[in-house]
Amino acid sequence: MEHTKEIVLTGDRPTGCLHLGHYIGSLKNRIDLQNIYEKCYIMVADTQALSDNFNNPGKVIENVVEICKDYLAVGIDPLKSTIFIQSMIPELPELMLYYLNLVTLSRLERNPTVKSELQQREFGMSVPVGFLCYPVSQIADITAFKATIVPVGEDQLPMIELSNEVVRRFNITYNKSVLRESRALLGTTKRLVGIDGKSKASKSLNNAIFLCDSDEDIHDKVYRMFTDPDHIRVSDPGKVEGNVVFAYMDAFYEDREELEALKKHYQEGGLGDSSVKSLLSRSLQKLITPIRERRAEITKNYVMDILIDGTARARKEAAKTLGEVKEAIGIVYTRS
Amino acid sequence: MEHTKEIVLTGDRPTGCLHLGHYIGSLKNRIDLQNIYEKCYIMVADTQALSDNFNNPGKVIENVVEICKDYLAVGIDPLKSTIFIQSMIPELPELMLYYLNLVTLSRLERNPTVKSELQQREFGMSVPVGFLCYPVSQIADITAFKATIVPVGEDQLPMIELSNEVVRRFNITYNKSVLRESRALLGTTKRLVGIDGKSKASKSLNNAIFLCDSDEDIHDKVYRMFTDPDHIRVSDPGKVEGNVVFAYMDAFYEDREELEALKKHYQEGGLGDSSVKSLLSRSLQKLITPIRERRAEITKNYVMDILIDGTARARKEAAKTLGEVKEAIGIVYTRS
Repeated sequence: MEHTKEIVLTGDRPTGCLHLGHYIGSLKNRIDLQNIYEKCYIMVADTQALSDNFNNPGKVIENVVEICKDYLAVGIDPLKSTIFIQSMIPELPELMLYYLNLVTLSRLERNPTVKSELQQREFGMSVPVGFLCYPVSQIADITAFKATIVPVGEDQLPMIELSNEVVRRFNITYNKSVLRESRALLGTTKRLVGIDGKSKASKSLNNAIFLCDSDEDIHDKVYRMFTDPDHIRVSDPGKVEGNVVFAYMDAFYEDREELEALKKHYQEGGLGDSSVKSLLSRSLQKLITPIRERRAEITKNYVMDILIDGTARARKEAAKTLGEVKEAIGIVYTRS
Repeated sequence: MEHTKEIVLTGDRPTGCLHLGHYIGSLKNRIDLQNIYEKCYIMVADTQALSDNFNNPGKVIENVVEICKDYLAVGIDPLKSTIFIQSMIPELPELMLYYLNLVTLSRLERNPTVKSELQQREFGMSVPVGFLCYPVSQIADITAFKATIVPVGEDQLPMIELSNEVVRRFNITYNKSVLRESRALLGTTKRLVGIDGKSKASKSLNNAIFLCDSDEDIHDKVYRMFTDPDHIRVSDPGKVEGNVVFAYMDAFYEDREELEALKKHYQEGGLGDSSVKSLLSRSLQKLITPIRERRAEITKNYVMDILIDGTARARKEAAKTLGEVKEAIGIVYTRS
């Protein structure tokens, strides 16, 4: 019966505070999801983050609380969404252990997400096995909660595919429909560009506007944004495409009609960069200020209460699934 | 203080009943070890056995009880040795997860033990990641109990080396002496040959004498043993080297003086194969009969009590180590 209910699993690697890229790409969406589906799990993926930050664990651990503050500040409701810490669910590595037997090395190495991430991180020959195996750890995360919907970016589609492969292999190998397949829920917005116009906004590239940035920070960052290099005088016609300011206007400016008029004006000439930047800055301040203010009121102890409670609820589900998995394999020992 | 005490970890993959090869190679030794060292852990490695028997779990699970019966029948004392089931210690995959970050893929693939086992099993390109990772799972086993002595065959030396590498890397990376290095304890006896004279005695090659074999089985197997093919008539001189009967006499015949005389007689000619086989058969029956009889009296429920009790004690130690490991990484969350 319960199999007809949709279950959502989502989460983040706690490697820094969240920024507008996260907000538009996933956080905003989660606020809707928690109102649509009965069960939403949001995982703070600390052990996954350790797989490429193992020699800098402090960065990961500090950000667990910070990221949870971001969640609560943007409007994720801990009564509707179960927020939990990955490392506090020992059932996850146990599930992973059983799934590792169902995935071949060549299948993992063929995964395009893993491939491109390996290149990005420049591990070369010295890729830690933990990093290589993290898709299997993700399969444990998804299946532990019997998630059916996994909100992801397009780059994560091969991971969902691999997860479903393992789910089918498990159910066939152990001749029991224990695990459920999941489907990707692709976001409708494209990736938010960094304020420098280079690739996506990210903490490591220092080109993002954070949800905890002050009004001054926001102002400064908007004014540092790249625009159209050929738009020299106000009267010059300007390009909207590839213009970082308009990319942010597209993503965040509320009055869509006014935005179209502004674009037209900018393209025809006569609208200065600083005028648009001023509008954008005020608009982003209007969005971020209440988030930042709510964030400032959230104490570490309150966050810990939320996390401990959510983790306990999540663990119960994971333990149930692990029990079923072990039962299906038959790896259960009792007195007769 | 307790770090000065030696701790032994040993164990078996439960894939079949134990035979004379195990008896001479490890079981006999364990009976001594439990009297020398204060802590001896004997692990029934069911999850490790699953890594290359994942599609035949029944074979593994059934043999957990059988192998424990063998232990008790040969004289392993559950009051002196802690016998436990690997899959019932969830702290082990958790430890493994943290260690996976400290081992590179190329380092694993370079491990000669893994290399030769991969070849033996003919996985080709489709080696399950679980199988490739099993040395890391072994590192979790060794370190969880802070074992300092690991009785192994020579082929397992690179595994102990890798384990110590990870121990050092962990202690350096997290700047805390949490984990202990271990050393291999090599057996003094060489591998027992199969009754067919081909490679080592093993269940899968159907060339072993089991600790649960009947007197008739033992008699039949001894009489099927290969001897010297050139020793045709009783009066012919015979070769002792490469002669399976004498290999078993060397390993098990109690009266060493008589054995030397027999060898001399055989080499000079005049001693028939069947005379030696009769001596060997009676000698092995004398060894195995009491083991088999004790074995027959051991009930499944008694074994389960031993295993559940041993597992609970082992788990306590593993949980202590995991706590220290997480503390060292700093991956611990509390209200302040």
